[in-house]
Amino acid sequence: MVTNVQPAVLTIAGTDSSGGAGIQADLKTFTAHNCYGTSVVVAMTAQNTTGVQAVHSVPPEFIEQQLRSVLDDIDIKAMKTGMLFDAKSIRTVVGMLRSFYLKDGMSLPPLVCDPVCVSTSGHTLLQSDALDVLISELLPLTFLLTPNKSEAELILSSRNLEPSSITDLEGMLVAAEKLLTLGPKNILLKGGHLTVTYQQVLEFKKARPDVRLVSSSLYGENMEILQVSEENLLSHGIVVDALQNAEGATLYLRPRIDSTSTHGTGCTLAAALTCELSRGRSVYEATARATEYTHQGIETAVPIGKGFGPLNHMHSLTVRCIPKPTASNPHPLIRLLLQSTASIWKEYVEHEFVKQLGKGTLLKECFLHFVKQDYLYLRYYARAYGLLVAKSTSFAAIKSATDTIINIVNEVATHKSFCAKWGISEEELLATPESPSTTAYGAYIIDCGIQGDAAKLTMAAAACLLGYGEVGLWLQKESQKPGTWVVIEGNPYAPWIEDYSGEHYQNAVKVGIATIETIAARDPPSPARFEEWRSVWERCTMLEKGFWDMALNLL
Amino acid sequence: MVTNVQPAVLTIAGTDSSGGAGIQADLKTFTAHNCYGTSVVVAMTAQNTTGVQAVHSVPPEFIEQQLRSVLDDIDIKAMKTGMLFDAKSIRTVVGMLRSFYLKDGMSLPPLVCDPVCVSTSGHTLLQSDALDVLISELLPLTFLLTPNKSEAELILSSRNLEPSSITDLEGMLVAAEKLLTLGPKNILLKGGHLTVTYQQVLEFKKARPDVRLVSSSLYGENMEILQVSEENLLSHGIVVDALQNAEGATLYLRPRIDSTSTHGTGCTLAAALTCELSRGRSVYEATARATEYTHQGIETAVPIGKGFGPLNHMHSLTVRCIPKPTASNPHPLIRLLLQSTASIWKEYVEHEFVKQLGKGTLLKECFLHFVKQDYLYLRYYARAYGLLVAKSTSFAAIKSATDTIINIVNEVATHKSFCAKWGISEEELLATPESPSTTAYGAYIIDCGIQGDAAKLTMAAAACLLGYGEVGLWLQKESQKPGTWVVIEGNPYAPWIEDYSGEHYQNAVKVGIATIETIAARDPPSPARFEEWRSVWERCTMLEKGFWDMALNLL
Repeated sequence: MVTNVQPAVLTIAGTDSSGGAGIQADLKTFTAHNCYGTSVVVAMTAQNTTGVQAVHSVPPEFIEQQLRSVLDDIDIKAMKTGMLFDAKSIRTVVGMLRSFYLKDGMSLPPLVCDPVCVSTSGHTLLQSDALDVLISELLPLTFLLTPNKSEAELILSSRNLEPSSITDLEGMLVAAEKLLTLGPKNILLKGGHLTVTYQQVLEFKKARPDVRLVSSSLYGENMEILQVSEENLLSHGIVVDALQNAEGATLYLRPRIDSTSTHGTGCTLAAALTCELSRGRSVYEATARATEYTHQGIETAVPIGKGFGPLNHMHSLTVRCIPKPTASNPHPLIRLLLQSTASIWKEYVEHEFVKQLGKGTLLKECFLHFVKQDYLYLRYYARAYGLLVAKSTSFAAIKSATDTIINIVNEVATHKSFCAKWGISEEELLATPESPSTTAYGAYIIDCGIQGDAAKLTMAAAACLLGYGEVGLWLQKESQKPGTWVVIEGNPYAPWIEDYSGEHYQNAVKVGIATIETIAARDPPSPARFEEWRSVWERCTMLEKGFWDMALNLL
Repeated sequence: MVTNVQPAVLTIAGTDSSGGAGIQADLKTFTAHNCYGTSVVVAMTAQNTTGVQAVHSVPPEFIEQQLRSVLDDIDIKAMKTGMLFDAKSIRTVVGMLRSFYLKDGMSLPPLVCDPVCVSTSGHTLLQSDALDVLISELLPLTFLLTPNKSEAELILSSRNLEPSSITDLEGMLVAAEKLLTLGPKNILLKGGHLTVTYQQVLEFKKARPDVRLVSSSLYGENMEILQVSEENLLSHGIVVDALQNAEGATLYLRPRIDSTSTHGTGCTLAAALTCELSRGRSVYEATARATEYTHQGIETAVPIGKGFGPLNHMHSLTVRCIPKPTASNPHPLIRLLLQSTASIWKEYVEHEFVKQLGKGTLLKECFLHFVKQDYLYLRYYARAYGLLVAKSTSFAAIKSATDTIINIVNEVATHKSFCAKWGISEEELLATPESPSTTAYGAYIIDCGIQGDAAKLTMAAAACLLGYGEVGLWLQKESQKPGTWVVIEGNPYAPWIEDYSGEHYQNAVKVGIATIETIAARDPPSPARFEEWRSVWERCTMLEKGFWDMALNLL
């Protein structure tokens, strides 16, 4: 089962001050994969994109102490080793892993061994006597070994397993099979050194029908419409990584890209493999995903440094516009909307019309003008929720929008009773000419519904629902302060205040708030989409203010 | 100006094997902020969530070498210091920063100094003689100092600047003002040790009207509708961080949360501040954002380890569903759609109907049935693009959808001429009863347009546009192979093949592909939204296959 929590992973490796390789690349890769990264430093390097300037070793006792601190406390789901530097460190690491895991029937979490021997710039990162220890002690514990051509050759020749030349696909598989005899469960022999044509891969497959091809990084069969670019790509050639295990060989194909942003590629691939394995993915799926992640990291690299720059570890990430709801911020989207439109929102909910209504000094004709126009507006508003019903994908959403329509119909009854009290018949209400402010606001909401999805329409309807709730609560709260300016006793508009501050309307507001937050939590918007929501919300807030202006000025 | 690229930042600090604090927390925070992280290791710790088990120092020469490797090669936009351990390291760091930056009129990038003295668990992380060096040498270079209560007290008392007790807001500001005299341009005195009520903050503000309040982490004015939860929050009390500089004092308010996931909070806050400053943000905005990021990290923490767990550095990230377009994968969305529905897509574009059409063996009545139903289908299809015009937000989008309507109208003319050739009048075409397969597909596309936004409607229309393009190209490509099964000469359906493989239709396909990819690149979908697009695409592909079935079986 693939898990979505944050599995803890461990890198045992060297540092890279410039951040492109080593435990720094590992930690960046872990973070990009939503894994919790821990790290044990085996050696330190002063290096940058132009090369390795110095190496500083770490005493075995301190390597052991770091491992103990991590393993004692944290449940590691997968781990990798990178630069291990010397024989003593390797023995220390192996000894600790054995003593922690290989007892009481426990098993070692998947271990990815990146047999770092020489830096891209030619600096020795594994002392000569260490290779033998790595082979005899670490490889038998290894789940997945990830050598490149020269590492594979070094390992094989040190064991007198003469590598046939690793200069073609057949040579890669022969080398991988020999490496398998040294203990690792899986070998991923990286093929960056070798460029082949797609045609050569297909011919190789004919000769070796047992070999599986994974070409999901290429445009394949039934993709003629994307073919033009494909031909350009294939003319650049194909790079093949070979995965070998007891079940046979699998080749992972991807287009060759020319780039100097390759510093830390090996570390990054091994770290990405570790993350995928930590989630319980198969070695096949892990390889497909991790090679693709690394490939994209190279291709989207941002220039850093003067030499072989690092790949881009962050290409797969986007930053959330709206935080996740938490106990201290259960309404993150509405908080953002209100904060980003604070001044116009205040002009709306603390409008002069509202204040006069609270004082009871509002001219009767202004209020009646408002009620008549609001009656006409609510017809748009009810229709908007009808449109929302039509846009809904679940009966729960259909029910919720329908409940709102019923609430609006009931709200209209209150309007009619206000009018009746003041001698205005329903016929007169219906015959009232619609003010441009009413048309603008009502038609704008309908237009949002035509133009966008249910989320956009919900945002358009929100300023009205939430704003009247806010006005009702504000007037009620003010009325309870000592020496309040709000008049309830004898205020002809008191029923209006009671309606909007009352439980029934406030419950509708609560449901509306929950609906809006659920939309954002289930389908976190991109910056472009959030900006669309924000601007709809802002426009509606301005149109609400315009509605009070219209009422107050009898426009 | 705030920049969106990946600014390079540097941490000079100690390691934490368990990954929650130190350079590990810094690198995670840098990655979460889309900054390029570099790091210089000054000391190493073996630690975990229960405490610090061992510390290992790094020789000054190697600290110097790491700094030289980074600064020689990479343009650092902001930096931070964390655990500096001893006097020698501090002198080394200061010496290197001076020699690199403070010459030839250059200036130091913003330096955030987190004066780490003692771990949360009580372990000494700064040797006693080092504090004096930190104060006299590093603080004068510091842009922003971020002490907590005990660090502030330690620094002030070592300089005989007797701290008034830092147990209330006034005490915090007095301490911050004194710290300012030691050289840093800004002091951010963290207030986690002190819980106050919102009322106390307001009263303090009355006594000190010069102090600015930033309460964007709270539900504030005109947010009565969110008030119920607010009252619960405020009953937990408020935590205040105080920023002091030459312009005065600013207090950042946030709700107190009770959590044991606080390992690495100080490192994370300083690293987040560094990222914000590296983008050119003001110290005020940097503080508002970084304190909020850290606060959310604590509140969304996932349990790790047995002691004080780390906060969640990844809370602000989401993983992209669709990679960015690159040279080797310019059509990432369409590649994903085709790969995720490969088998049904193949059944559609390599349908038996298509094969018989290519061979010229297709029964005339099947083809005519197809043409008549396609004529009726295209009426829905043209209307769908009309709906897309109505949903468009730019004249470019309006023009593009309108061009498609014109293409459809022209396509219908071809249908009519086929029919005329075979003696079927337009009247007969119009009188043809609509097959359920036609209605299902046509009405489904229209329904997608009613239900969703322009993106969803575009996905619904894509299977038809792209599929016929694919069929045309496939037949054409097959016809050019030696010994091909495709017949052109004498094939009554050859004009049909020529139409869909021809330049005019293929250009429309190219425009369609570009439009679809632009939608995904401008508004990267969440997993929920991508799944919606994918399932619309899959449904339409199945309905296309059903359309050929219908034609072949005269249904």
